[in-house]
Amino acid sequence: LQVFPTAEHSRFSHSLGTYEIARYIIETVDTVKNALSEEEQVTLLCAALLHDVGHGPFSHAFELIHPIHHEEYTCKIILEDSEVNQVLKQISPDFPSKVASVINKTHPNGILSQLISSQIDADRIDYLLRDAFFTGTPYGYIDVKRLIRIMSVKDNQIVFKESGIANLENFVMGRYHMYRTVYYHPASTCYEVIVTNLINRFFELLATGYKFKGDYCLLLPFGSRKSISAAEYTDLDEYSIYYYARLMSREDDPILKDLSIRFLNRKLLKTVLVKNALEANYYKDLVIKEGYNPSYYFYSVKPNQIIYKNYGMNDKANINILMRDGSIKELSEVSAIMAALINADLSSRDDTIVIYI
Amino acid sequence: LQVFPTAEHSRFSHSLGTYEIARYIIETVDTVKNALSEEEQVTLLCAALLHDVGHGPFSHAFELIHPIHHEEYTCKIILEDSEVNQVLKQISPDFPSKVASVINKTHPNGILSQLISSQIDADRIDYLLRDAFFTGTPYGYIDVKRLIRIMSVKDNQIVFKESGIANLENFVMGRYHMYRTVYYHPASTCYEVIVTNLINRFFELLATGYKFKGDYCLLLPFGSRKSISAAEYTDLDEYSIYYYARLMSREDDPILKDLSIRFLNRKLLKTVLVKNALEANYYKDLVIKEGYNPSYYFYSVKPNQIIYKNYGMNDKANINILMRDGSIKELSEVSAIMAALINADLSSRDDTIVIYI
Amino acid sequence: LQVFPTAEHSRFSHSLGTYEIARYIIETVDTVKNALSEEEQVTLLCAALLHDVGHGPFSHAFELIHPIHHEEYTCKIILEDSEVNQVLKQISPDFPSKVASVINKTHPNGILSQLISSQIDADRIDYLLRDAFFTGTPYGYIDVKRLIRIMSVKDNQIVFKESGIANLENFVMGRYHMYRTVYYHPASTCYEVIVTNLINRFFELLATGYKFKGDYCLLLPFGSRKSISAAEYTDLDEYSIYYYARLMSREDDPILKDLSIRFLNRKLLKTVLVKNALEANYYKDLVIKEGYNPSYYFYSVKPNQIIYKNYGMNDKANINILMRDGSIKELSEVSAIMAALINADLSSRDDTIVIYI
Amino acid sequence: LQVFPTAEHSRFSHSLGTYEIARYIIETVDTVKNALSEEEQVTLLCAALLHDVGHGPFSHAFELIHPIHHEEYTCKIILEDSEVNQVLKQISPDFPSKVASVINKTHPNGILSQLISSQIDADRIDYLLRDAFFTGTPYGYIDVKRLIRIMSVKDNQIVFKESGIANLENFVMGRYHMYRTVYYHPASTCYEVIVTNLINRFFELLATGYKFKGDYCLLLPFGSRKSISAAEYTDLDEYSIYYYARLMSREDDPILKDLSIRFLNRKLLKTVLVKNALEANYYKDLVIKEGYNPSYYFYSVKPNQIIYKNYGMNDKANINILMRDGSIKELSEVSAIMAALINADLSSRDDTIVIYI
Repeated sequence: LQVFPTAEHSRFSHSLGTYEIARYIIETVDTVKNALSEEEQVTLLCAALLHDVGHGPFSHAFELIHPIHHEEYTCKIILEDSEVNQVLKQISPDFPSKVASVINKTHPNGILSQLISSQIDADRIDYLLRDAFFTGTPYGYIDVKRLIRIMSVKDNQIVFKESGIANLENFVMGRYHMYRTVYYHPASTCYEVIVTNLINRFFELLATGYKFKGDYCLLLPFGSRKSISAAEYTDLDEYSIYYYARLMSREDDPILKDLSIRFLNRKLLKTVLVKNALEANYYKDLVIKEGYNPSYYFYSVKPNQIIYKNYGMNDKANINILMRDGSIKELSEVSAIMAALINADLSSRDDTIVIYI
Repeated sequence: LQVFPTAEHSRFSHSLGTYEIARYIIETVDTVKNALSEEEQVTLLCAALLHDVGHGPFSHAFELIHPIHHEEYTCKIILEDSEVNQVLKQISPDFPSKVASVINKTHPNGILSQLISSQIDADRIDYLLRDAFFTGTPYGYIDVKRLIRIMSVKDNQIVFKESGIANLENFVMGRYHMYRTVYYHPASTCYEVIVTNLINRFFELLATGYKFKGDYCLLLPFGSRKSISAAEYTDLDEYSIYYYARLMSREDDPILKDLSIRFLNRKLLKTVLVKNALEANYYKDLVIKEGYNPSYYFYSVKPNQIIYKNYGMNDKANINILMRDGSIKELSEVSAIMAALINADLSSRDDTIVIYI
Repeated sequence: LQVFPTAEHSRFSHSLGTYEIARYIIETVDTVKNALSEEEQVTLLCAALLHDVGHGPFSHAFELIHPIHHEEYTCKIILEDSEVNQVLKQISPDFPSKVASVINKTHPNGILSQLISSQIDADRIDYLLRDAFFTGTPYGYIDVKRLIRIMSVKDNQIVFKESGIANLENFVMGRYHMYRTVYYHPASTCYEVIVTNLINRFFELLATGYKFKGDYCLLLPFGSRKSISAAEYTDLDEYSIYYYARLMSREDDPILKDLSIRFLNRKLLKTVLVKNALEANYYKDLVIKEGYNPSYYFYSVKPNQIIYKNYGMNDKANINILMRDGSIKELSEVSAIMAALINADLSSRDDTIVIYI
Repeated sequence: LQVFPTAEHSRFSHSLGTYEIARYIIETVDTVKNALSEEEQVTLLCAALLHDVGHGPFSHAFELIHPIHHEEYTCKIILEDSEVNQVLKQISPDFPSKVASVINKTHPNGILSQLISSQIDADRIDYLLRDAFFTGTPYGYIDVKRLIRIMSVKDNQIVFKESGIANLENFVMGRYHMYRTVYYHPASTCYEVIVTNLINRFFELLATGYKFKGDYCLLLPFGSRKSISAAEYTDLDEYSIYYYARLMSREDDPILKDLSIRFLNRKLLKTVLVKNALEANYYKDLVIKEGYNPSYYFYSVKPNQIIYKNYGMNDKANINILMRDGSIKELSEVSAIMAALINADLSSRDDTIVIYI
């Protein structure tokens, strides 16, 4: 976000986009339409629209702090007495629980979950397209209409026609390249580290009874780390975090002050690529020697290398191919490229990103 | 912004874009490069980067509330003891004042102001392109490289070569269409009305000594309406307004509460297009009859129709054409389309947008 | 074509494109679908596919030589004993004549002709989009989906909803800019002049009994200028003209030889823009003085300036607007820009293109 | 070409494109510029413009018939007494031979050949981009500016910076996908088979003394299969082949007549994908049983699977990476994906395309 200044698509537009792709799938793929009852179609569309509603501010950064998976909160918001819940109830009293069952993958018709969360679904299609568009990188230029045209349903699961294997390869490779060049861009990683450590520092100070000057009313409930209501959860959005960062920049604690100013003014830490943990430790020692607390001023990560995974026979998260002879095979069984990628030990080749003072 | 959910380009990326276009002009148009000293080139680039730094949150909405033009604040931030000022001073002690003189159009070399604020400049080119891209409308697809290639300098002013008149027409028409379809979209107007009235309501309550529950520390200085420092001004960003809107939704005043909830949840007022002020009044009466305060729940506006203006001989804001015979003419003198548009009484044909409860 | 080397879309892809747009209109605009019987829908699609089948090689250039309008030949090919005719007859014996009646605008349901040949139709939409794409100019970037979404049928004619006036303005302006910058590009004009004069020269020599070395079997029937069969007409395609030009470059006649070499090797004549006929004559005299035949080495043209025309009340070729109150108005009555353009005397302002040795 | 009706880019625009990319490389990559003398820069640009000038009509199809590699003819045209040769000679008497030495890879400065013919060069970059644009497939959307920005020269060879490995992977994968989905599209293959067999049939008939009705003057010299002059070679373009196909459709030989009508009217043969040669033979037998000559009515091909090749140490055709530590490595040594692809036995997985009556 901070490295690619135009990559500012919000969760709101991503939700609309996921909804629109789900709608387009139902509209154009007859086998999908026929495999879903009318109620299931509406359930799918609502799940598409709401699938990310439980994302906290600075998504994954926040999950590190508050140990609750965002899908749990999505369900909580759908099921608890929220405005979302009230709207869904107007359809039928048990409609919220049906939508939630798509999110947590317990809906009896597995096709719904496959269309929202598998290795190729409305969610992933939308964000690949969206990120490619907004960052201006060419990796995500997939032919989405054709990708959907090759979709079908067979044996009550989503499959893709053999004729479209190239499109699937292109989709998986597009995600791979986006991960390498955008999501794991050292500066993106660094920004995430700063916001994570800033909030961590705040809670540490809070736990020790530190006297803050500012009023952090929406953030305080998270400090106690007990149960958070859906309302408390949605109230704390990214705007609030930005606002609180401004207040934090006026507090006296030097770490809180420094990290919040870095956060507000995009003053990143240094980043370097190293080959292994040993080399990474050199920088950790450096941070300590310079008198900084490595909990806040050092971080190393090895980019996650799983491009595509064969989860084993009949797993719903696999990308399955409908062969011309009517049989179903998993993608890596029929795509030479995917097979090569699954077998190759990619992780040994890549660099470790080190963030340090 | 709220109608076109992807149109979320920030001032930050627009500033980078304006800088980049100014840089590209210097790089590719030799006559411009030669008409600027090296220091003037740097001055231009800094002015491009900083030209919008004085925009308050929700830009034009905020100007209605706090009676200071954003260009004044841009200069104030550049000249006062801000971080921006300190960086600029490193070039030379009077460099900040040189950059500011481009913004307020007093720089001795008029070309600098022409490239940042005239009827066709780096600022307007960037935001037309940017808005077209992010809203997905095709109106702004101008050939920006060619638009810049036809630029030149003659008699110490920016001119455009006769061969590129079609490009200029296309640029002006692109802006016209963006105004009609995006900027004056009834829902955009409505959103602006809500935020304006929300902040107005806050200050009215403040003036009457209303006891707020929340802490609005960054907004309070604006309530006194006396001089605001550059630091106070930049601290109050859009994140703060969003945060305060959430606090306002918990206050007791029903108007403040209602408008803030509308603001946070995009619950717009009704909009209708009418032909004249008489018809608009019908809706105002309706609002009053229903028991609402028209100061907060009624608004009417007739879209501003000036597409392109000939400011008279030798005005720097004109688009001037370098004819094949070496003479200079104003665009509407040589473009049949621009001439027709200037002469036509456009305003009589358009609708009035009415916003009401 | 020769100036914009990528602008090589053939009539074949344009025909598919026109068909696709007609199909999309039927699919998405319910009022159009309902206004056409099933047979009329198929008739429309066939007419869209075949509307240009009677275009001779180098389209308009060839019409100057062989005095038959291409629409006549389109009908002839559809109605005579061609392969096209045989395929159409399989639907019903009178189906070819129904398709032809759309082309020559005598079909009882006027909507069919409006969708294929009016001031905004599937034909014009496709070629604006296609030319914009292949020439890389931005002028034709219209939002075609929205253009079609605002279409409707009222009083048995095609109308456009008031809310889409900006799209219509954009479409008309797009065509205007394409005309100015691409179709009337001096080099395009020059190339058309060369091919026209080359073929003219061939027929003049043929009329005087000149002995050619090459075998021009497919071109000879056109020399007699009597009736040409549909088969003879379609046999003479652009490939044949290119081939014959190569043969002509080996003939002894110096004019035929020179023009054919220019044609094959893109060696254009000189072009200049002048203000009026008097200035044009200066170049004609120059050509004569240099010993060249002005019939072959001089040409002047004033670009045709009609952007949009109001053909008067209820004319099918008008662009008609369905107002919010249900009434129908012609576009220039409600669009300030179109009104201005219709009234402005554009022709007085433009240049004359002169082609000379 | 016949399957993707818009993919009609000519060799002319491809030549301009290759030239432009070569020019852009020189302009933006300082190390390349510095590694080339001024004369070498001009030599490179001319070689880029002319690299395909020796392509016969229907390129690769024609090479099958006339056993001369197109690069030989490119050199012949550059070196023999052609118009091209005369223009090049104006620079210096030995300039044509310098340009030719880039084409046949004997130029002393190997960088020139690397930029025109290696596994990543101006030629391949242009046609990937061009084909992607004109066929509308998304596979070729590579970030060409960045691809060139990561170029450099080290140890007198073209290298690419380690930071741009993702771009290189994207480029190679783009080519791979274009091969699979466009170049080896069964219908493209079928069209190529038809034109090859049509011309083969013509020469067979010619060899047996068959009396043709039409005049095939430009094609006859190729029948004798002795040396063809550069002029004879360039005279026979695709237009002539189309024209001759029309004449052939009027000859009496049933095979010549049938294939030419198929060629002119895009009436393809049937295509089927089979798993191996055995299955392919089933179709060959079918063709014979139906009384057709399999030399003209049967064809089978296994798509060529080499995506990227490591030609061994220091080969100029390798894609070489400049590592951050200054060393040079071949792409598959540092890219996990390329390594996997080189090692994987791709060929075992793909289908054989069979064309039959």
